[in-house]
Parts: sequence; C-alpha cells; structure tokens
Amino acid sequence: MLNLQSNSTDRWVESASNNIEEILIDHAHCEKKAAGCAMNLLFAYVDNQTLTQAMTEIVNEELEHFHLVLGLLNRRKISFRKLTPSSYGRRLNELVRKSEPERAVDRLLVAGLIEARSCERFDLLRQHIPDPELSDFYGSLFESEARHHATYVKLAKLFAEDSVVKQRLIELSTSESAIIATGDPSPRMHS
Amino acid sequence: MLNLQSNSTDRWVESASNNIEEILIDHAHCEKKAAGCAMNLLFAYVDNQTLTQAMTEIVNEELEHFHLVLGLLNRRKISFRKLTPSSYGRRLNELVRKSEPERAVDRLLVAGLIEARSCERFDLLRQHIPDPELSDFYGSLFESEARHHATYVKLAKLFAEDSVVKQRLIELSTSESAIIATGDPSPRMHS
Repeated sequence: MLNLQSNSTDRWVESASNNIEEILIDHAHCEKKAAGCAMNLLFAYVDNQTLTQAMTEIVNEELEHFHLVLGLLNRRKISFRKLTPSSYGRRLNELVRKSEPERAVDRLLVAGLIEARSCERFDLLRQHIPDPELSDFYGSLFESEARHHATYVKLAKLFAEDSVVKQRLIELSTSESAIIATGDPSPRMHS
Repeated sequence: MLNLQSNSTDRWVESASNNIEEILIDHAHCEKKAAGCAMNLLFAYVDNQTLTQAMTEIVNEELEHFHLVLGLLNRRKISFRKLTPSSYGRRLNELVRKSEPERAVDRLLVAGLIEARSCERFDLLRQHIPDPELSDFYGSLFESEARHHATYVKLAKLFAEDSVVKQRLIELSTSESAIIATGDPSPRMHS
C-alpha cells in the first residue's frame, strides 16, 4: 500500500525511542516542511484545479499536525528549536528530473514517498514507544499519512500514464530505500 | 482603521470595472500569494507560537478565498492563467529592512498594508460593480481582509514597542500611498 521497498531498521526504532525529545522537535519541523512542500506544489501547478484542491487540504492538515506536535512539546516543557535536518529530503529531491511533465511526476512521487516513510515510522513508534499519549498520537497520524501518500501517487497520474508513474515509483522507491538505509548520525524522523 | 494614507482613485475603479475578468484572475493570484506570504512568515518565525497560530489561520483562509475566486472563474468560463503581476508587492517588499527584529516588524506591516489596500478596494468594487454575485463576493471578503490587517499589526508588536510599530506603520503606509499612486499600466488588484 505504501510502495516502500524496505522496512525501517531496529537501529532506527531504538535510536528514536532513546531520543524521543529530539524526534518530536524534528517531527514538528517535518510537518511544517510537508505543509511548505504542498504549498510549493500548489504554486507550481496552480492551473491544475484537482491538484490545487488536494494541496490545499494537505496544507491545512499538515499545519494542524504541526500545531499538534507543538502542543505536545509545550505540555512536555520541551523547547521547540532549530535542528539540523537529516539529509533524506535533500537527497530525495535531488532525484527530481528538471523538465516537465517529468518534474511534476517526480515532485509528487517524492512527496508521496516521504509520506509513506513517515507513515511506516509512525506505526513503529506507535508500537514501540511505552508512553500512551505518544503512542496514541502516532496512531492518530498514521491514517492521514497513508492517505496523503495515495493522494500524491494519484496526482502524479495527472501528468503521465499510469504505467509510467508505476515504473517511476518503483525507481524512486528503490532509491528511497537506499537513502534511508545509509542513515544519519543524529536521531531524526528520517535518519 | 486600515492605516492607509490615501484612497484609491476613480481611475482605478473605472479600470477595474472595465476589466473585471483580468481583475478576477489577478485576484486569484493575490489570494495565493497571500497564503504563500503567511506560510513564509510562519517558516521564518517558527519558534513564535502566537505568530505561527495566526499564520496558520491566515494560510487556511487565503487558500479558501483562492478557491472561492477559482469557483467564480469557473462559473464564468474564464480560464485561470498566469498574469504579469503589478509592481506593488515587489516595491513594498523592497522597503523591508534586512536585520532582525526590524525585518520581522516590516514584513508583518507590509503584509498588513497589502491586506488593508485589498480591503479598501474590495469595498469599492462591492459598491461599484453592477453584478450582484461579484458585489456580494467582494462584500464577503471585506471583513476578513480588515481582520488580517489588524492581526498583522498586532503581531508586529511582538517584535517592537507599540510606539515604534506605530511610527514605522506611518512611514510604510506613506510609501504605500506613493507606490499605489504611481499605478501600473495593466488592470490589477493593486495597480
């Protein structure tokens, strides 16, 4: 369903569990970036009304999630602060082709793969974090990330044939698996 | 209430009334840009929760307005398309000082002045456009633009003393009046 080619490692689950404050701060940044990414797609393909409507809904939901994470940070007296992001997003975005309509397909599929990986990891956190509030929280986000993944893949099909999108999704998800496997030294949602 | 130093001219009202299709298309672009501006402010001052909450609400409302204008365009069989923007936004943004916290004050006040001018012009269009659907539409946007103006001025006061903000608002609104008075050759919301 999520079109991922690999599962996250126990190493990541352990690192995230042991550094949950940093993971929460990074998560807030990820929600903000997801809203920004949807807004950028809306701007880039503003004459496509199916896309702008879907992006508007995603912008609203990601900003809502951003505030949910900020609320959690507040209740836990964790200061929201800047963090060096993992290299995951940048490396995935480097795979986006330059010319249209391939560029649109790739931007949408990359956004969709990031949602898919977040979804897979929220599910792991939901299962492994021994804190009922956090476990419930990750559980509540799981569904919307899966839905956003499906939306992005569907939108990519506005810019290319289904079979072309399917093939490109396999290529990009293979790269995604390689990128996430190399990891990052700091504990992050996508390290 | 709107802190503007001048009223729009009859010339603008006439030009807008005679080119309402182009005004509607430009309006859609303006709503999209207003959403983008609020999102950029959220990103720039992400650790200020009063600001991020207010920006989230404005992003949502501006995107809602964007879709309302797109709906109007659709019903009138007007294609949404790219337009050369007026120089108004660019010229106002050139007045923003480079170093913080002055930069934050200026970005918020410039955003607030653009909302104020839109508000004043929606009121003029509401009064002068002999089309009940459009007149009602502009009337319905009037209130939210006025509220956004007040929000931006209030947020600027998180970054400087009230008296400093008040003085800077007079300076910027004086420049705004000079910029809007020079006009633009094409009919635009801010020509």
